[in-house]
Amino acid sequence: MDYNEKSLELHKRLKGKIEVISKVKVDTADALATAYTPGVAAPCIEIHNNPETSYDYTSRGNLVAVISDGSAVLGLGNIGGLAGMPVMEGKCVLFKEFGGVDAFPVCLSTQDSDEIVKTVKYLEPSFGGINLEDIASPRCFEIERRLNECMDIPVFHDDQHGTAIIVLAGLINALKIVKKDIKNVKIVLNGPGAAGTAIALLLNYYGAENIVPCDEFGILYPGRDNMEWHKKELAEKFNKNAVKGNLKDAIKGADVFIGVSKGNLLTPEMIADMNADAIIFAMANPVPEIMPDEAKAAGARIVGTGRSDFPNQVNNVLAFPGIFRGALDAKAKKITKGMKLAAALAIANVISPEELNENNILPKPFDKRVGQAVSEAVFKAAKSEGVCRC
Amino acid sequence: MDYNEKSLELHKRLKGKIEVISKVKVDTADALATAYTPGVAAPCIEIHNNPETSYDYTSRGNLVAVISDGSAVLGLGNIGGLAGMPVMEGKCVLFKEFGGVDAFPVCLSTQDSDEIVKTVKYLEPSFGGINLEDIASPRCFEIERRLNECMDIPVFHDDQHGTAIIVLAGLINALKIVKKDIKNVKIVLNGPGAAGTAIALLLNYYGAENIVPCDEFGILYPGRDNMEWHKKELAEKFNKNAVKGNLKDAIKGADVFIGVSKGNLLTPEMIADMNADAIIFAMANPVPEIMPDEAKAAGARIVGTGRSDFPNQVNNVLAFPGIFRGALDAKAKKITKGMKLAAALAIANVISPEELNENNILPKPFDKRVGQAVSEAVFKAAKSEGVCRC
Repeated sequence: MDYNEKSLELHKRLKGKIEVISKVKVDTADALATAYTPGVAAPCIEIHNNPETSYDYTSRGNLVAVISDGSAVLGLGNIGGLAGMPVMEGKCVLFKEFGGVDAFPVCLSTQDSDEIVKTVKYLEPSFGGINLEDIASPRCFEIERRLNECMDIPVFHDDQHGTAIIVLAGLINALKIVKKDIKNVKIVLNGPGAAGTAIALLLNYYGAENIVPCDEFGILYPGRDNMEWHKKELAEKFNKNAVKGNLKDAIKGADVFIGVSKGNLLTPEMIADMNADAIIFAMANPVPEIMPDEAKAAGARIVGTGRSDFPNQVNNVLAFPGIFRGALDAKAKKITKGMKLAAALAIANVISPEELNENNILPKPFDKRVGQAVSEAVFKAAKSEGVCRC
Repeated sequence: MDYNEKSLELHKRLKGKIEVISKVKVDTADALATAYTPGVAAPCIEIHNNPETSYDYTSRGNLVAVISDGSAVLGLGNIGGLAGMPVMEGKCVLFKEFGGVDAFPVCLSTQDSDEIVKTVKYLEPSFGGINLEDIASPRCFEIERRLNECMDIPVFHDDQHGTAIIVLAGLINALKIVKKDIKNVKIVLNGPGAAGTAIALLLNYYGAENIVPCDEFGILYPGRDNMEWHKKELAEKFNKNAVKGNLKDAIKGADVFIGVSKGNLLTPEMIADMNADAIIFAMANPVPEIMPDEAKAAGARIVGTGRSDFPNQVNNVLAFPGIFRGALDAKAKKITKGMKLAAALAIANVISPEELNENNILPKPFDKRVGQAVSEAVFKAAKSEGVCRC
């Protein structure tokens, strides 16, 4: 039985993957009067008088909304909010399993950015954090930015930042092996969508300066035709000299290739044009930009993909549960760049010097050390960045 | 320790009363690939091709949103969505305990009716039903009506209909005792807010014709000054002859008094002016319109209140868990008047002829027979009314 059949059977048998349960029994008049009326008026009044106590008296402090409009679900594309529910429920399952976070799937029947921003903003009293998921680029950038401006709880688009954090963690460890400094390496970033853009910005925040962003038409440069605004920003930030060319041109002399693009577009010839000890993150799914064995044969030293059946899997589950665990523990108002960087470093450092090798730059998704390391690092960073309520 | 202190302690210790849990373990790569990617794409595609299968493959079919803007919370008034959370969580606890329904508290940070309608509409993919709660009158009428028009799942404002259903159930049984026909009795309805208006309309749907609606300025009559539109509708429907007067005038010769108004406004003299075998529902909280012993001393035969420390408690928990249980089991698109009437009759019929007496016209909140009786009746009614997907 393949995973499609198994998955249909599982979902049908369980009728969905999440359940809402009560932490209290209300089987006596006394219990009812304590958990509900008349006693419940007391916490209501406390919260009314001091809104911060909502973290003490309600479930909000451990609740994250997994919000999607279903416009870019997995590789399925724009299937809408209703059809996206199984994915969002799955995400909630992972939040609970790997971070002890109560997460609830909120699938929307609108794909209008203004309406999404207002809707999510209005949900703020019920949640301690917002995880945006599978919202198409470039709308996802605007929606996240506007929500972060108007909300007082963390808003985190996992497709962007989760991926960026894992890539940075993997790159930090890969660079240890090849003994290169991130400040000096040339990085080709192919596929400047939601994930690609966030990867470029986070790598730059950590110190990478020589990043060459490319899309299917080649290198992004200022003034190029038909670029969406996020591509314009990348071009202006990373290609001030307006270097032009295609991917083949871009990759000459590169140390690192990061692909969140399409299967099979990286050739052995291109890898042969890279510097020695080339590092490849070929994360297109399910078919990577180049298969790991082919990349290695062409001279790559370290290869990561999005797949679980190859070494060095870039899997967001390493990041988001611990990030929200730490942010919720800190009653954080935001997830800052510093917190994202702290998460990446924590993930990288889970791999000890003894464990580190070409085929083991990232922890496995089921490595129990990861969630705790990430949540502690994010909690500390929230404190030092001044965004926590604790 | 009083209930306020006990409740604060309970809420602080548990940090809220609800939890979201996973129905699946994802502790192996195989389990992850079945519950999440790549397997999860299969149910997504099924739902995309046939939206009705969302009831098979997601948790939606057992999920109800308990939605409030916090504008009329308990007797506390307009304390806002954030401060209303403990009540909405409590409601979710009751849904689970008494109906096996997964309910999730959605507290909104807006009190604008248009914005609430849009927000709730956008949440439709995540839920199988909407329970509106503690939204101030008269906005609650418009919000419920508009949502029922634009949504394809049941929308039920419990403060209105839950109360109306229990009052009708209690009145049906009370009338059995006094051997009067609902068609012939004169009913004074004092307090035409959310609950009062719904009570008048449901009693009328069951056959009551002589209903005299009153507010703090006396009898509602067509053309009276300063009446909100729902009061105008009641006046035009129930007082075609434009009878005027105060509550004292209205209650002369009445068989039934139903109060959802204010404490202590019904006097023994007024009850003495009622017909023999008077039935009193004095539901103001925490102080009823008249205390039961005082009402009895003045000649009332049957008295119900909203309080658990007197006989005949009118408690919504008798209705909403079973109503949504039945509606969800039927994958209902609406909760119709017929379904509400079926619920009221089911609640009334839980009390057998042997059990029925002046102090036992309604089942106790913890009577296990109620939820099942109500859900079965509502399920059947959904079928016969043609609003179910099953």
